[in-house]
Parts: sequence; C-alpha cells; structure tokens
Amino acid sequence: MQRHESELIADLARRFPPRAERAGIGDDAAVLAPGPAVAASVDSLVEGVHFDRSRTSARLIGRKALSSALSDLAAMGADPGDALIAIGVPVDLDDADWDGICNGIADAAAASGAAVAGGDITRSDVLFLTVTVLGYGASADALVGRAGASPGQVVAVTGELGGAAAGLALLAGRAGDAGLARGVAAALEARQADPTPRLREGRALAEAGATAMIDLSDGLASDAGHVAAASRCRIEIDLSRLPVQEGVREVAARIGEDPLELAAGGGEDYELLACIPADRLGQAKADVEALGTALTEIGRVVSGQGLALIGPNGEPRELSGFDHLP
Amino acid sequence: MQRHESELIADLARRFPPRAERAGIGDDAAVLAPGPAVAASVDSLVEGVHFDRSRTSARLIGRKALSSALSDLAAMGADPGDALIAIGVPVDLDDADWDGICNGIADAAAASGAAVAGGDITRSDVLFLTVTVLGYGASADALVGRAGASPGQVVAVTGELGGAAAGLALLAGRAGDAGLARGVAAALEARQADPTPRLREGRALAEAGATAMIDLSDGLASDAGHVAAASRCRIEIDLSRLPVQEGVREVAARIGEDPLELAAGGGEDYELLACIPADRLGQAKADVEALGTALTEIGRVVSGQGLALIGPNGEPRELSGFDHLP
Repeated sequence: MQRHESELIADLARRFPPRAERAGIGDDAAVLAPGPAVAASVDSLVEGVHFDRSRTSARLIGRKALSSALSDLAAMGADPGDALIAIGVPVDLDDADWDGICNGIADAAAASGAAVAGGDITRSDVLFLTVTVLGYGASADALVGRAGASPGQVVAVTGELGGAAAGLALLAGRAGDAGLARGVAAALEARQADPTPRLREGRALAEAGATAMIDLSDGLASDAGHVAAASRCRIEIDLSRLPVQEGVREVAARIGEDPLELAAGGGEDYELLACIPADRLGQAKADVEALGTALTEIGRVVSGQGLALIGPNGEPRELSGFDHLP
Repeated sequence: MQRHESELIADLARRFPPRAERAGIGDDAAVLAPGPAVAASVDSLVEGVHFDRSRTSARLIGRKALSSALSDLAAMGADPGDALIAIGVPVDLDDADWDGICNGIADAAAASGAAVAGGDITRSDVLFLTVTVLGYGASADALVGRAGASPGQVVAVTGELGGAAAGLALLAGRAGDAGLARGVAAALEARQADPTPRLREGRALAEAGATAMIDLSDGLASDAGHVAAASRCRIEIDLSRLPVQEGVREVAARIGEDPLELAAGGGEDYELLACIPADRLGQAKADVEALGTALTEIGRVVSGQGLALIGPNGEPRELSGFDHLP
C-alpha cells in the first residue's frame, strides 16, 4: 500500500464520522460523552499469531478485531459505547484488504451499536489491529467484574461451547469434513473466524442479578478458574451439562480428542460464564432466551478455592486444555 | 522471552495496581470513573518504524509510548486520566527489556499523573506498544479541539522547536557532534528520544481561553495546516519568531539544512500550538511561564484558508518539510 498514513486516517474519518457534536477521528483526541461509569478494555489481533493473512479474509479480520474486544464489555454487562482502533499497516497490504478491514470493523460496529471514535495508523512489518473499547454503565456497581462470585450461586453459560476449537480444526484441515453437513461445518468455522460478542446477553445477565461474569476467550476451564481465583471461591463444573455445539463431537472424534476438551479447554467461543444467585436463574434464563440465546446451568459456586471439573460419573476430571497460543 | 502472556499480564497487574475500588488489569475490563467529558486518543510505537530496539533503551521506548500518547491529551487541555496499553511481545525480548518497558511506562505515568488501568499482551514478530489514553474535562466545551480558531486570534507555541529533528540527526550520526557542548547535544537528543507531554501547559492554555490547539507531532508546518483546515481559517506564521532550540542552528549547518526546516518542518517536538484571542495572550503567557515553559507568539489567524509561512523579510516561504515517516 502506497497511500500515506494521513490518507488512511482521512479514509477512516470518512468511514466513521463522529456522532453528534464531538470531535472525532482527525482531531488530537475524540471527545466522548460517557455514562457515569466506564468499562475499558484493549485487545490486539496480530498477523502470524492470531491470523494468517493468506487464509483469512480482511473483512473477517476487521470484524473479529472489534467483536472480540467487545466481548470483554459483554462480560462486564456494559453498553458498548466507543472504540478506538490502532492499525499497523504493512506496505504490501493492498487497497482491497484495507477496504475489507474497514468494512469488517464497520460490520461489527453496526451489529453492536459501538461507535468508532478514534484511530491511529502506522506502518508496521506485520499487520496488527489493537482495539480499545469503552462501555458504559449506570454506575460502577452496575458493571460486573470477575470477583463477585459467592458460595451458593449457580454457574451458567450462554450459547454453546466447543465450536471455535472444532472450527479451528476444520479450518486447519486437520479434520477433513468430519462427515458433517456443510451447514454444520460452516457454523463451526464461523464460531472461530467470526465470533459474536454476547453484549445484549451480558446486560440481561447483569440486570437479572449476575454478580460475576467472564467471557470465554481462553476456554471454560481456564476462564472459570480466573473467576474462582478472583472471587476466592471454588467453582464446580458438571462437564456432562456443557452445551456442546452440534458437530463438535464428530470433529473431536476425527482428531482423536475428547469433545469435552474442545468444549471446556478450547478458547474463543466468546460465550459468557455468569455466577448468579440460584433464585435469579429462572429470570436470567427467560431474559437471555428472549434474545434467542440459550442459558445453561453447568455448575455451582462453593466455598474453598480453585476449579473442579466433574465428569459424567461424578469423577474429577483433568483437562489438558488447549493452549490458547496468543 | 519464554514467559507466558498470562504471567506478563500478572506482572503488569502487580506493577500497576488499580486505583481505589475499581476493577483493574486482569478483569475483563477496567472500570473507570471519568469526568463529565472524556478525550480519548490512541497511538502506536512500532519496532523498525518508530524505533530500533538495538539503539533505543527499552525504558525510553516505554516512556515515549505513553508520553507521546499523552501529548494528544495535552493538546485537548484535558486532565490525564487513564491509559490502556497493548504490547506485542517478540519471543526474543528478554526480561531486562520487559522490565525496562514497564519501568518506562511507570515513569511517564508518574510524571503525568495518568493511571495504567488496563493492558493486553500478545505475541508478535515485532515489538509494538499501542497506548490508548483517556483524559477528562469538566465538560465537552472545556476540551479544546483543532476546529476552534477564528480570525483575529494570535497563534502561540510553547517551549522551543527543532530540537527533536536536530536530536534525530545527532542520534543517527549524521551531524557528528555539530561542535556542540555535550549538554546542548544531550538536550537535543532527549527531545527526540524522551519527549515531555505539555499537559499542565495545555490545561493552562485552555483555561486562559485558547479555542484551538494541536500538539506538534508531525511538525509545525504540517500541524498548523491541520488547525487552519479544521477551523476553515488562514494561519500566518512569522518564521523569524520561531523559538528555535539551542544547538539546532549548528546541527542544521552540519547537515546542510535550513534551521527553519528543522524548527517548522521537523516533527516530534510535542510542543503545543494554540490559537487564542489577542487580549488573552498576556494571561496565557503568564500562566504558562509560571509552569517554567515559554509561550511565544508566532503568528495570527486571518480569514481565508491554508497556511502561510512568512520569512524574515516578509517573503512567503516554502518548506519542503521533513517527512514524518511513521
């Protein structure tokens, strides 16, 4: 790409005009009008680490960069507000790829309601997108962190698990077609390549009374462990209750893995895990299901520490875990 | 560096504990308590583009990453509030370099009063630091953008110019020692390698009545042009009035450049250019000088468009401009 950074910034500013009266892209800083409390998070996608430019469309790279960052806001129960996007642009990125990245960002912004309020473009030998997202809440107490789980609560998870890990195996050609119908395989691949942040579900869970949440980016076993550690509680997960996505068992069989490894050890499903008082679960389920998403009880919070994974026959289970490389 | 990202995140969380009660590094998102209006900006420093790891200390890389991002808040007249820092970590970054980067970030945070509220660590083939800064103001009107200049105002600049471009020439070995005393040369080099965001000066200028500001990251000629364009005015700069830093003339002579090219065309001085009503200049000067920084009137805002650079004898001047590579 021969265009100067200033042209690319101008292009971004055209694509993402400021809302209302505030200064937007092109000023020294964007002027935002936040809610009373702000949840802020930053995530990077880096070529050669998180994606391979030759195998992933530019549009999906742009979508995933913003969607995966927004998932952290979903896990806080925050309203998606603003995003600031820094892009490192290699000289061999062509105009079509630039368009694709911007269009992908715009897709994810439109789907979530987040505004792209600022950006920075720089040269880089590798393509990277670093996305900072700001989500808003009525008060700091209305934002749900990881540390609020307490004994007696139930643990629930949105949607279905294992799809992203199975999709990765399919995309990498490690599982053939796993004997799956094309639609089932495509859904698994999309879980990996084009995740959906559970923003509305996160707000519904927060309003229904969830006191601790996390998004499943590293994998259930790892992320539930983070909640247990931050909350100084023990979390017990019944592996037999995990909502395993259609097709995951077939892919697992093809690559010689336990499907539970994909569902509990695989990352990037971007579902939400929530700890919620038992007497609020019914309302939470109804509210999340009204959004078209399942909410499944998969375990409980007890006193103690650490994470316990319990197999179908009540036996403790160890998962080796998929190492979440990035 | 063999340490896993999660260890590095834990290290960051130890180094930058959350202020007060909010969630900090290690949760899905940091919870912030912003002022009524927020100025947000993002900047990246990338290895091989903005710095060379073999020639710049890790600590200075960390300092510059945060300081240069904070300069955008200075140009808004915002209080530095919070920073979120994404770091791409190559496998060959050693522990001492990691420490140096974190210590440099901590230096710049302590000097500015900004809090490091969040972070993200990822593998990357090149070292990069992407810093998002959030600055707070009493209202959106209290934050000063680029678009508020109006005819009749004067144009003033903080501090001294040309130092960063001269320092770059010295650091690159293109000017020998330019016959300069070591202290003078070191001051020029520090302007390039270790810039100071003019945060207090920016707030003083905003309070004194500046209606448009920009930080001189690309260079005066380029940045004043941005203000003129955003404000739909013409800006005239008297080049003979530019406060040229000590030693810049000697370096310019050694590399065969006009010192005005370094002062007006060179980037990264990170001084502030402000447009201010003429009857407020005296107060602004007094307030900025009380902070130990000069404020020099260098031009005026008139009707029309574009930027005019006027030479010592009243002649229009063209500057080729240093291309600000990154």
